[in-house]
Order: sequence, then structure tokens, then C-alpha cells
Amino acid sequence: MNKKILQSVWHDGHECDILINGVIFTKIDKPLTPAERDGAEMVDCKGFAIMPAFYNGHCHAAMTLLRGYADDMPLMKWLQEYIWPFEAKMQPRDIEIGTRLAILEMIKSGTVFFSDMYWHREYTMKVVEEMGIRATIGVTIAENIDSPEHIEENIRFLQNHSHESERVKIAAMPHAIYTVGEKLFRRCAEVAREEKLILHTHLSETQTEVADCQKANGCTPVELLDRLGVLGSNFVAAHCVHLTDSDMNRMADSGSTAILNPCSNLKLGSGIPQIVKMMEHGVRLGLGTDGASSNNNLDMHEEMKLASLLAKANGQAEALPASEALKMPTANVAQAYGINAGAIAEGCLADALLIDLKNERLAPRHNLTSNWVYAADASAIDSVICNGEFVMRNRHIDGEEDIVREAEACAKRLAGKK
Amino acid sequence: MNKKILQSVWHDGHECDILINGVIFTKIDKPLTPAERDGAEMVDCKGFAIMPAFYNGHCHAAMTLLRGYADDMPLMKWLQEYIWPFEAKMQPRDIEIGTRLAILEMIKSGTVFFSDMYWHREYTMKVVEEMGIRATIGVTIAENIDSPEHIEENIRFLQNHSHESERVKIAAMPHAIYTVGEKLFRRCAEVAREEKLILHTHLSETQTEVADCQKANGCTPVELLDRLGVLGSNFVAAHCVHLTDSDMNRMADSGSTAILNPCSNLKLGSGIPQIVKMMEHGVRLGLGTDGASSNNNLDMHEEMKLASLLAKANGQAEALPASEALKMPTANVAQAYGINAGAIAEGCLADALLIDLKNERLAPRHNLTSNWVYAADASAIDSVICNGEFVMRNRHIDGEEDIVREAEACAKRLAGKK
Repeated sequence: MNKKILQSVWHDGHECDILINGVIFTKIDKPLTPAERDGAEMVDCKGFAIMPAFYNGHCHAAMTLLRGYADDMPLMKWLQEYIWPFEAKMQPRDIEIGTRLAILEMIKSGTVFFSDMYWHREYTMKVVEEMGIRATIGVTIAENIDSPEHIEENIRFLQNHSHESERVKIAAMPHAIYTVGEKLFRRCAEVAREEKLILHTHLSETQTEVADCQKANGCTPVELLDRLGVLGSNFVAAHCVHLTDSDMNRMADSGSTAILNPCSNLKLGSGIPQIVKMMEHGVRLGLGTDGASSNNNLDMHEEMKLASLLAKANGQAEALPASEALKMPTANVAQAYGINAGAIAEGCLADALLIDLKNERLAPRHNLTSNWVYAADASAIDSVICNGEFVMRNRHIDGEEDIVREAEACAKRLAGKK
Repeated sequence: MNKKILQSVWHDGHECDILINGVIFTKIDKPLTPAERDGAEMVDCKGFAIMPAFYNGHCHAAMTLLRGYADDMPLMKWLQEYIWPFEAKMQPRDIEIGTRLAILEMIKSGTVFFSDMYWHREYTMKVVEEMGIRATIGVTIAENIDSPEHIEENIRFLQNHSHESERVKIAAMPHAIYTVGEKLFRRCAEVAREEKLILHTHLSETQTEVADCQKANGCTPVELLDRLGVLGSNFVAAHCVHLTDSDMNRMADSGSTAILNPCSNLKLGSGIPQIVKMMEHGVRLGLGTDGASSNNNLDMHEEMKLASLLAKANGQAEALPASEALKMPTANVAQAYGINAGAIAEGCLADALLIDLKNERLAPRHNLTSNWVYAADASAIDSVICNGEFVMRNRHIDGEEDIVREAEACAKRLAGKK
């Protein structure tokens, strides 16, 4: 069995040794027995601090091919004139290439898990397996796009979810209340509950969505999903920018999770998430990046800092302190998706970052957590560990130049350039 | 004379050659004559794009020693219990060490100029000269701190400003309306105008400042300074979070510049700058980082992205597009401080960044400006040119590990640790 000792790594204010046994942190900062040392790979971590890795709670990985393809325009123009026509040309092989670029970027910025809502999931799964990180891959359902037959096939796939592995899970992902009808949404919720799967959807992203729902159903989107039996501890909703007090209570009471995507929400003009109010209502808050066509990157560190800043913006300098902000893209997302990870703690899955203490933004070291959250950026990450294995070391990932080159060529072709 | 040709550098959508003659861009993307090529250092820039360097419009560089020393608390507690007691212990040599760490971080994140308001300016000037970038160094004036004799000495220094060099200028920097009385503020403005110096101050940073001014003077801080004859094309005001319509008109009509510090303003709970409204009123907007104790870094790229996101946040996805956002930390700040730079253009001072096109966040290249503003971070910067000379090459700066180590030791000592 894979066994590693991270030697002299900075953790909790001092240097210590950390034992990884298989895929688990088994001993942290305690004397190791000769048996524990026996056969272990010794990894010299002097000069590096260990930090929890990031978990991206909401993504459309393959859309990285559309990064910068259309910006700075209203949502419907953006979708109808640019994003949808581009996506219509994407083939399974393109999904694979785009996802590979996305995962390269994610690993480089310390992310070891993403929740993905897109099409051709088998190609996404393949790339995740190959690149060594974790994912919850959506069985995406949208009545405006998928045929009834394809939807039935997807429901059957959810009922026979044998396509999972240690690192890759599937989840029911009805796209949104405006693309999936009540009957089908209810059915997705039933199947997810029976099969013990996560159910993930877009929710209350824009004021228009909420207003349309009020008009059509006489209630908010959250109230609608509550009525349909969707809310619960397996329910993870992306965005949640426009929630009422009642919505927040329903989310909190049901044990549902809200995944905020502050960068995307600001960039598309959707609004500023009500972080402090949601926390006061007891809603579990995680973070995600959304797709790179509306962000335009997959950097969870940026989301973390932005979330913390937005929480404080209007007179609340003490809101969401660094140590709490750090949980939003780590432990909170892992917990929402049922992954026993997100902290450097015995018994947790061995996912972690090694950050370089020589980095100028980590000095002086009055408070390392503060430096990490507020001062550093992802480039301070030297190495990334997922499931007990290094997926990046010394900022190098095998084949990265080829991945970038291939994505560049693919995107050019799709954009109609030669 | 120093002469360089940046060969095959990506600029405006294609590869071209750029001639730097002395400290000036003299020919861009045009055939070079044998005489122009003669004796030039050839710099192979294939695979790199050239971008304008950043100009930090408001900073307290030496406060980098206080990074992470106190966070997540209300402003007055932060100042009185942490920042001021720490600063009281700082000696000139500490200012030098802190400034050196600050400039290291600035160069690494592509900044070649900063406007600095602090004490012991001669030590700051020394480090700027040594590290090869530009600065406008404040003759800082604060009646709550400086003795009348020291203030007179400072005024005399402003009247005999012979301490300037090609890269380092001085400016009058009365701290704020709440630390400098009307009479002295008026005098600073007169001296600055006579001596053709920039006048820089903190302005309308918090609601409290505006309310206090209304109570004491029956007008807003901007109106007060207008009355005192401070506004004008040499006036550069930091923060400007809480301006009225009338304030914005006065700033615009007088040719004054507002330097927004969105990261610091959010983190300290001061509020969200009204970017779109200020632009509509025609106020010239630049960006700054403020000190690293309230940001907590000096990364102008982060400020640029944050400013663009905040402009769009509430329903205005088309506000402050990437190409406009790019001007705020570059040409606009340079112009405000009277520096003929901030763009890659013939006749401009040769300040620039070379960014690495292999960086995964710059792919695919549908729109390089968008990728640079929204997707990349400062780690895509490979090299930094200031005044025709490389101050960073291949992400390396001579002596950087020593600078970090020395700052770490200095900060520990000042914090009362051993």
C-alpha cells in the first residue's frame, strides 16, 4: 500500500511529520512508530506549509474552450449569439480536450475536486480518472435540449449508477427550474433520494428567474423546489444570489447547501451574494467557479478571497474572517458532496496543498491563514496531493504544454477559425 | 545608449518587433533600418505577449511588514490596538526593509510604479532607486503626528524639491481632511501648485469621514477641498468611495483623479466604489492597492479584475469591459501622476510586461485582453521592463530570498517576538 511521510511540513504554527497511509491522513504531528515508518516514501517538505486543497462546488469544465469567446454583454445576447452556437458545434472529443485544459488549470490552482454539469459525461469522467483528481459528474437533464428518450435513458442511468469509482461519482443534475418541468424535477429528486445521489441544480441565479417563477408559480424558486420535495441534505444548489429570508430558512432547515459563484455572478451582472445573511440563517455555504466562459478562470482561491471581501464590504470588517473563509472552498464543499475531506486531519482523505513559504506574499508570517486567504494567490502552491498521490509537484504537471496546445487548436477550429 | 529589440513579441493580434531606444518605445511593428538594428540587444520574445505594466496609484509600501498582523476587525480597533502601536516601533531601517519586500512583490506582480504615503521618505527613495522602478514619494503631512517644526521642514522640502531623479519624484501628501487643518491643507495646495507637484490625499474613504465633515463644515470632503483650492489636474485622491453627484462633477470638472482601492475598501468594510457612476460623470479613475495591512497584497492585477467585477455586479454585464478595465491600473494612473507611460505605444516610456502565452489561463486565445484581465493572474508575468531595463526576467529577481528572509526577521522583532 502507498505510504508517505510528509517530513518537516509547516502545520498549525510549527514543523511536523504527517503520515499518509493509502488514501488517508493517519497520523499528524505525533511520534511515528518504526512500523509506521517502515516502507514509507519520505517526502522532504521543509519550507512548505500544508493547506487543505480546494473543492469546486459548481463547474462546467469543458466550457474552458469558450474562455474569452464572449464577454461584457447582457446574458441573453451572450447565450444566444455566442455560447449556444459555439456549444452546438462541440463533439465528445472536444469535451475531452476542454475538460483536460480545465483540470490542468484546476490542479495548478490547487483544486482536487469539481462538480460538473455538462454533456457527454463519459468523456469528462475519463479525463478525471486519467488526471488523478476527484469529481462528481452530472447526469445533466434539460427539457429544452434533451429529447424525451434521452431523458429516460438518463433516468435509467441514474437508477443503475455502476459507473462510479473511488474518485468519480455521478449525480442527478436537472439544469434549472426554467429548463426542467415540475413533474420531471420531482422524479429526479425521487431517484436521487432512492439511489443516495447528490442532486445539483442552478437556483435563484438572477432576479429574472425569481420574478418569472413568482409569476408562473406564485412562489420563489426555493419554495417551488421545497414543494416538489427536492430540498434535503443531498441537495446542492448553485448560485442562490436572490434568496428571501424564508428561502434561507428552508435551505438551512433541510440541510441543503448553497454553492456561491461570486466571480461569475458579478461578471454576468447577476448580483452580489448575501453571504452574511445566509450565514446568519445557518445555510451551509460552499464556493464554485462556474464555467470559464463567465468567470473567466477556475481559480478557487480567487473565489475564496472575493467571498470574504464581499461579506465585509458594507461595514462588516469582522465578517467571514480568514479561517472561516477558508472552509467555504474546502470542508464545506467536500461535506456537501459527501466526501470525507477538506481538512488536514487524521481520518480524512489525503488531499492537500504544499505552499511555498519562500513566496513573498506569505511574508512576514504574523498569521499564515490570513496570508494564504488574503495575500497569496494560487502561484504559491508548489504541490498538490489528491487521494494520497501527488498530482502536481514543483508546479509541474506532465504534458501540460500539449494540453494547452491541443485546446488552443480545438477552440480555434470550433470558433470557425482555421 | 541602451538599445533593445523585443523580437517576435505578440502585440495587437500578431508577432512583431519592438525597438526600445534608451528609455522610450521608438518603433513598434514597423520595419527596422540597419541603423536601428545596429548595436541593439536582441531579446527573443517568441511565445510572449507584451502588455502595459501596472502603476499603483496609492500605497503605503513599508506597511507590508504588517501584512496579516491584524485582520477582520473594525477600523478603529485595528488602528488603535494593532497598527499604530506596531508603527510606533518602526525605525528608518525597518522602513527600508519593508519597502524592499513591497517592491519585490510589486515587480513580481507587474507593477513598475507606486505612489507612496509614509514616513522616512529618504529610505523609501533609496530602495526604489536600487530596485529600478518608479515612484512618487510623499512628503507626508499629518498634524496629529508631526510636530509644527517637522511640518515646516516638510513644506520647505517641497519648496526645494531637488531630491528627484528620472524615476523618483516627490509629491505633497497631506494625509486627510481629518488629520490636516484647513489652513495647512490650503498651504499644501499652494506649494504644490507653485512647484508643479502632485498633491495626494485620502478622501471620502468611509461614511464616517463624510458624516463628520458634514457636521463640522456643512459640506462634503470634496466640497471642502474644492473650497480650499485643492482640486485640479495635479490632485490625486485615494479611495473616493462615498462621493455625491456634486462631488463627482467637481472632480471631473477640475481634472482631478480618483484612485480606487477596491480590495482595501471592501476588506475594511468601507464600502463598494461607485465605478459606473463615477465614469458616467467623467471622473478619471485609477487604481491602487493601499497598504498590505488592509488588502493584504500589492497585486494590481487583482484590483483590476475586482474593479471590473464590481462595476458589473448589479445588472450591468457590459460595464467596464476588459479593454477599459486595463486602462485603470495602467494609463490612467500614469497620466494622473504625470508619467508619459501606461501603454505600448511609440513615444511612451518603455515600461512593459512580457506574459507567457503557454500559461494555461491564457488559452484558448479568443481574446487575449479578456484572458489577461479576467482569467490570468500575476503569475503569468514572465518579465518586467521599467524605463527600458529588465527588472525581472524569467520570474527571477536577484536577491529575492534574502529580501523575504530579512523582512520576516524584522517583522518578528517588531511584533515583539524574538
